[in-house]
Formats: sequence, structure tokens, C-alpha cells
Amino acid sequence: MFAKEIYTKRRDELKKSVPSGIVLLLGNGEAAVNYDGNPYAFRQDSSFIYYVGLDTPDLAYILDIDNDKEYLLGNELTIDDIIWMGNLPSLKDRAAEVGIETVVPFSQLATLISGSQQLHYLKPYRYRNQLILSELLNKNVTSVVAGYSVELTKAIIQMRLIKSAEELVELEDAGKTGYAMHIVAMKMCQPGVSEREIAGTIEGLAISEGTRVSFPTILSMNGQTLHNHDHSGILAPGRLMLCDAGAENGNYYASDFTRTTAVGGDYSQRQKNIHNIVLKALNDSIALTRPGITYKSVHRNAYKIVFEGLRDLGLVKGDTEDALNAGVPGLFMPHGLGHAMGLDVHDMEDLGETLVGYDDEIQRDTLFGYKSLRFGKRLEPGHVLTVEPGIYFVPQLIEKWEKEKINADFIHFSEVKKYLDFGGIRLEDDIVITEKGCRPVYGKRIPVTVEEIEQAVKN
Amino acid sequence: MFAKEIYTKRRDELKKSVPSGIVLLLGNGEAAVNYDGNPYAFRQDSSFIYYVGLDTPDLAYILDIDNDKEYLLGNELTIDDIIWMGNLPSLKDRAAEVGIETVVPFSQLATLISGSQQLHYLKPYRYRNQLILSELLNKNVTSVVAGYSVELTKAIIQMRLIKSAEELVELEDAGKTGYAMHIVAMKMCQPGVSEREIAGTIEGLAISEGTRVSFPTILSMNGQTLHNHDHSGILAPGRLMLCDAGAENGNYYASDFTRTTAVGGDYSQRQKNIHNIVLKALNDSIALTRPGITYKSVHRNAYKIVFEGLRDLGLVKGDTEDALNAGVPGLFMPHGLGHAMGLDVHDMEDLGETLVGYDDEIQRDTLFGYKSLRFGKRLEPGHVLTVEPGIYFVPQLIEKWEKEKINADFIHFSEVKKYLDFGGIRLEDDIVITEKGCRPVYGKRIPVTVEEIEQAVKN
Repeated sequence: MFAKEIYTKRRDELKKSVPSGIVLLLGNGEAAVNYDGNPYAFRQDSSFIYYVGLDTPDLAYILDIDNDKEYLLGNELTIDDIIWMGNLPSLKDRAAEVGIETVVPFSQLATLISGSQQLHYLKPYRYRNQLILSELLNKNVTSVVAGYSVELTKAIIQMRLIKSAEELVELEDAGKTGYAMHIVAMKMCQPGVSEREIAGTIEGLAISEGTRVSFPTILSMNGQTLHNHDHSGILAPGRLMLCDAGAENGNYYASDFTRTTAVGGDYSQRQKNIHNIVLKALNDSIALTRPGITYKSVHRNAYKIVFEGLRDLGLVKGDTEDALNAGVPGLFMPHGLGHAMGLDVHDMEDLGETLVGYDDEIQRDTLFGYKSLRFGKRLEPGHVLTVEPGIYFVPQLIEKWEKEKINADFIHFSEVKKYLDFGGIRLEDDIVITEKGCRPVYGKRIPVTVEEIEQAVKN
Repeated sequence: MFAKEIYTKRRDELKKSVPSGIVLLLGNGEAAVNYDGNPYAFRQDSSFIYYVGLDTPDLAYILDIDNDKEYLLGNELTIDDIIWMGNLPSLKDRAAEVGIETVVPFSQLATLISGSQQLHYLKPYRYRNQLILSELLNKNVTSVVAGYSVELTKAIIQMRLIKSAEELVELEDAGKTGYAMHIVAMKMCQPGVSEREIAGTIEGLAISEGTRVSFPTILSMNGQTLHNHDHSGILAPGRLMLCDAGAENGNYYASDFTRTTAVGGDYSQRQKNIHNIVLKALNDSIALTRPGITYKSVHRNAYKIVFEGLRDLGLVKGDTEDALNAGVPGLFMPHGLGHAMGLDVHDMEDLGETLVGYDDEIQRDTLFGYKSLRFGKRLEPGHVLTVEPGIYFVPQLIEKWEKEKINADFIHFSEVKKYLDFGGIRLEDDIVITEKGCRPVYGKRIPVTVEEIEQAVKN
């Protein structure tokens, strides 16, 4: 938790950006695994944490702008709770720690909002909160979800998108755990070790830090399968292990790194070649990123490096600009260069990816590959982003493009098909935009060159 | 997954026990952590797994008893899914593996149930499934929850409560991971080690086995705080570490063990004394447990051992039967001796703890302590139960009893208060009722005597 003043300042700023009505921020409740008494690890809503800072279930916050009042809604512990849960500070005291004076029982929610014609709430992504709003507003869930406040959403995105100095400290803290997770994964990347053993060890490491992973770990020899949470493989010589993993820190800030490691640290020439193209895309993207340019243009530049690198290897051909306009690199890197990161690993994705990543000036592209870029906006100091180029050989996609003759003039399919057993390589770092450029959001950089990774695996 | 015949046999049996109407089993969906794209680890509903065996999200099963038809509802993968998720078997093929021939899109749910006056569904514990049923039946959530089928619930409880030979194999498999978790925890139980490091390591171990914990790990020096998921302590000499932890296996079966370990393996005489009372309660309960007697009576016998053990130490006084009738042991062991275990660690708690644990013959007690016994029924071969006596010194509870003079004739409060810094000891094993008695549901027993635990910590 931050100092009280940080939360009061944030709420003051929010008040100014929403001119009238009542703002309702619903915290999260517990989420049952297989019965109510067996919940998943509690995770507070990120906007609630940002403005209210309290990370226990079943809270809500009301900012009554018209009457200039604010309320924390929640129930005090009973004597039974104290017997079973020990002595804990009262909700009143906890509210005071974040600068909120008035605490009322959660049951007063309906009464408190009844006076207003204009209720601002965020799009609810938890079924529980959809149900609470549905009952509160006497609307069906579809209407409830559709009725979220665009005004409030935009105001919150604008604030949360620019990370303050104290937030950067938290992100770096999350980065430290992410670093430790990747170092352990590299050391364990030996023939015969199971993917799930490594995944379990590094997820356990995040829990050991008192937190949790910031997203389900991707750890697989099948890096070409992008939505892959299968860990059933046994690491085999000659293969690559793609590991995309990060942790939250104690204050809910995320880290998100990817490294791809040759099993046993033994890279083939072919693996080195692809690795070095991805590495150049990563490093050149970081070198290029600065305030004033758009991340969309940085993505395009990464595509350029991927295309030209693969052209040097004889997998593609033709003019770079023509190929970029035609979307050729999408075959090999069918995802965006990166996304905003903060209290969520895909920052504020619950509020709408396009509202976060695009605006009136910079619109989302429709072309395959480009359209998957989550964040394209013109960059400003304080933006925190991932940079995560990759090259993959997705058999189903290659087959489809060849069959449908997509971009056939640019692609040597016969050469590309020699890589069907390759898998994929992705390298990902986290950066913050500074006044003149950008800098990493972590302490030590995770080994990233072939030589560094070889050394990390073998030592 | 089991062989097809096991699922078809289970569904046949279910069909016989619900005479008419339509049975609807809803599988679970994904549960968002902080946005839809970032879900918790998927966990299928246990009854769905029991009858249908498929562990992917967004499925439902319909058994139309009147027309003797069954359907699996779910959506086939699209070509895009295959590109991002790799080649996976079709839903049709997966349904065939569990003996279901007819697969229809999930959207046909409303149509398929529209013909019946009598829809049997289970009480939904996930908000998502409450919403699906609310929309389907055009009722508010409160009515939906209240409208579950007691007939279906009782039929399922009766079937799931008796574990078959193949289920016992799965439970033993889950027990192996639980064993490994506890051995690691004991070895790490050294002064200066943080609780969260140990908790993270053993939860990671469950993930490394390809599964997950069967419930959030309790690992704390404050064992007296029964609902305690705080891991912020640093192990200190002289204290006890209570660890209540278990894993699910790949087929969703649970294990659940508790051991309490003196930090560094160094037990004081006082700790040994309390440990040995709890150990006697554990071993005597297991020795006593057999078909034909009630678990309620085994609980009462454990209370007897606790009372008499504490009387030997001078903490309580008076006649055993009088003390048991007055509920004196509840001060020291304010929970039940155990619960049913299977596909859920508290088996079928979603279906109603009292329906699972009690019946017309054996009713739940109302006296403090006794009322917390989750399972009191007359025992039958195939019941799987935890046995988990404990002795705790809960300052808030002791204070309350002393202040309110509860059972003051039986308790030497001045002596009891010398233990306010003690914490608590619980020891828990898992058993299955056999034809003549009971046996453990695991391979090797986790070290349980003071000597065995000392050795495990120090070696």
C-alpha cells in the first residue's frame, strides 16, 4: 500500500475528470474453485486498488461528485471472524489509512446511489460484479455490461496509463521476481526435465515472494503455439523452450518477460540465426522507442527487421515496403510488438483494449498481424510497455497461407517448410518511456544473447 | 480420464435414480482474475467430471430421462483456435471417449430443455452458472439457487460418496504429491525461513506435478488461527509450524494432510505433551473407525481423548462424560474431526454440507465444537474421510469463555492462559472405510510422531 496522500490525490484528480453524478468502483469478491469455501487466491480489482488501495474482498467505493462525498462500503469483522481469523484492524481503521473517513455497510449500496440520475461504473468482467450491478440497477446482465461509463473509463485510463515514480518502483520490484523466475527456468532447461516441473517451480517462486504469477505461465517446446498453456512435454535435445512468465509484486504491479532457451544451452546454427533476428528486433525497438512517436510505428519497424532478417536467410523475398504493406511478416510474427503493463499485465484490458491502446489519432489496423497490436498510441513519458518480437513457424498457418496463396509472391514456401519442426522464438523486455527515450523497468536484464543464455544454462 | 465404460455406467446409474424429467449438469467456464483474458487455472466442476470426464471450459451435459437421450453441449474449435492452440481432438471425438454420441452447440441448451416440465440441476456455486441458469429459466438468481433439485442432489451424493477401486487409486496418487509437499515443508522448517517461501515451494510442487493444490495452503506459526491464510511470518525457534496442505491429482482427486512441526525440529516438553494427545486422538480415531458406527461417535471419542489428555496436564477438570456433554473440548478443538474427501477436498460441499454429512438418522449437533463436524453419518465401506484432531489455544476464544464463564467448572483458566503463546497442533490423515475397518489412502505415512518429525526436519 502507498501513503494515504497518493490515494487521496488520485481520487481528487478523478473527481475533477468526471464532472457530475456518482462514481461506483466495485471491488472483487472471492471466486469459488469447486465450492464457495474453496476460493482461488483473492485478487482485487486493479482500478479499485489504484484508487482505494485495500485488497480484501467485498468492498465498494462511492464518490458522490454532486455532493462532494465519498464512502467505503464493506462489513466490519464480527466476533466470530476475529476468533477464526485473529485480531485484524477494523475496516474503519483501514479506510483511514487510505484517507477515507466514512465507512458504511455494503448493504447501503442501493440507498447511496438512489439519489443520482447518473451512475458511472466500469465494465464488470467478474460475473459476481455483473450480478451485483444487475440486481442494483434492475437490468439484465447484457444491458449492465453495455451501460458502463465511457467517460469514467476514459478518465481512469488516462490516469493509470502514466506511471508515477512510486509505481515504477513497484514495477521494478515485480521485475525482480520475474528475473529470478527466468534464471531458474534457464538453469532447469536440460534434456529430460519436464516442462511442468519447471513451470511449477517458477510459479511456486512467485508464490514464495508472497504474491502470484501475473498471468498463467507459458512454458513449452511448442513456442509456435501461441495460446499454449500445455506443460506436458519432456525437454528434448535440439529443441527450444519458450518461457513467457512474470509475477505480480505485493502491491499488484506486474512483470512480463519472455526468453527462449535451447535445451541444454546447445544452439544449432539455425536456432542462432532466428534468435539473432528476434534479438535485433528487440534491441532496435528499444533503441527507437521514445516520446512523440507511435508504438504502431515501432511495431512496423520490428516487422521490417523480421522480414529483412528472414530474407537474408532465404525464406522470403521482395521489396521491404511492399512486403510490410502486404502484411508478410504476420506469417512469422502474428502478434503485436507489445502492450501496456501496470496493475494488470495487459494493463486495463478489462476496460477495453482499444480504448487503452488507440485513440482518435491512432486507429487500430485491420491487416493480419498488425491488427493484433494491443497498443499503438503516440508515446508519452510514463507509459510502460512490453517489447516482445518473435518469429514462429506455425504449421497450420503456413499451410493455410500456402493453400490460399496468401502473399505467395513474397514467400519461399518450400524453404519455410523446412522450419516446420522449429517451434518459435520470442524475446520480451519491459520498458518505461522517459523524457527523451525509454529505459528498462527492471534491475538486471535477463540473459538475452545466445552467448549469455548458453552461459546461464550451463553454469 | 477413466475408461469410457466407467462414465457410461455412472450415467446409467444416475438415470435409474432420477425417475423422470431432464438432468442438466453445467460444466464450469473460465474465471477471470483481473480481465477476461487472464483467467485463473481452469477447474472443472466435480460432478461434471464424475459423470462426463471432460475437463475443458464451456461444456454442459443433458440427460433426457423421459426420451432416453443424452447430449454433450459445447462448441467445436474454429480454424483460428487451431492456429493459436495447435491441433486438438474434436469435441465429437472427445465425447466419444466418454461414451457420449451426440454433441450439439452450446446455444441449443434452451431448446433442449424446453420440452420438459421438470428440469433437475445442481445448486450453482459459480456466479457464471447462476447467470446461465437465470437467463435460461428467466428467474432471478435467488430463485435459481433455491430451485435446485434435491432429488438429483441426493442421488449424486449417494453415488459419489462411495469411492470405487479406481477412485481410490486416484486418491492415493493425490496422496503421493501431498506426502512430497509435507516432507519438503518439514525439511524447510528451520529458524529464519519465511512461511511464504515454504508455502510457495510446496504449492509450486503441486503445480510441478501438473496439477494444483486441492485448497489454499495453511502454513503458519499461528496454528491457533483456524482460518488463516497469512504466510507473512519468519519461522522462529521455539514455535510450531502448522501446515495443512494437499494436492489434486491429474484426475481432480484430492489429498489433505496436516502436520505440525517444531521449528528446527526442537520440541519443548510442553509441545511434546500436546502433540502426543493429538497423536493419540488421531491414532485412536483411526483404530476405532469402521463400518456400522457413526463418524459422530468417532468425533466424540476424539473429544474424550483431548479432554482427558488435557486433564492429565491440569488444564481441565471434572468428569469426562459431563465435560463431553457440556462441550468443554470445543474450547481446544473448535472444529470437527473430519470431512468426506474425493473430487473435492470437502467432498461435494457445493451440494450442501449437511446433505453430504448427515441424514434422517444422524442429525447435526448444535453444541459448539460438535456443530462444526462436517460429516457425522453412519460409516459404509468406500467412504473416504479425513481424520484431523487438533488442540489450539485461541486467545480470543479463551478470553470469551473466561469472561462469559462458559464451562468455568471444567476449566482451569489460569493454567490454560499459560498456553496463550502456544499456537496450535493439528495432525491429519486420510482414510477409506473398508469392509471391516479402515485403511490409509496414501502410500507412505507422513512422519507423525515427535521422533519421526524431529528426524525429518534434522536430516
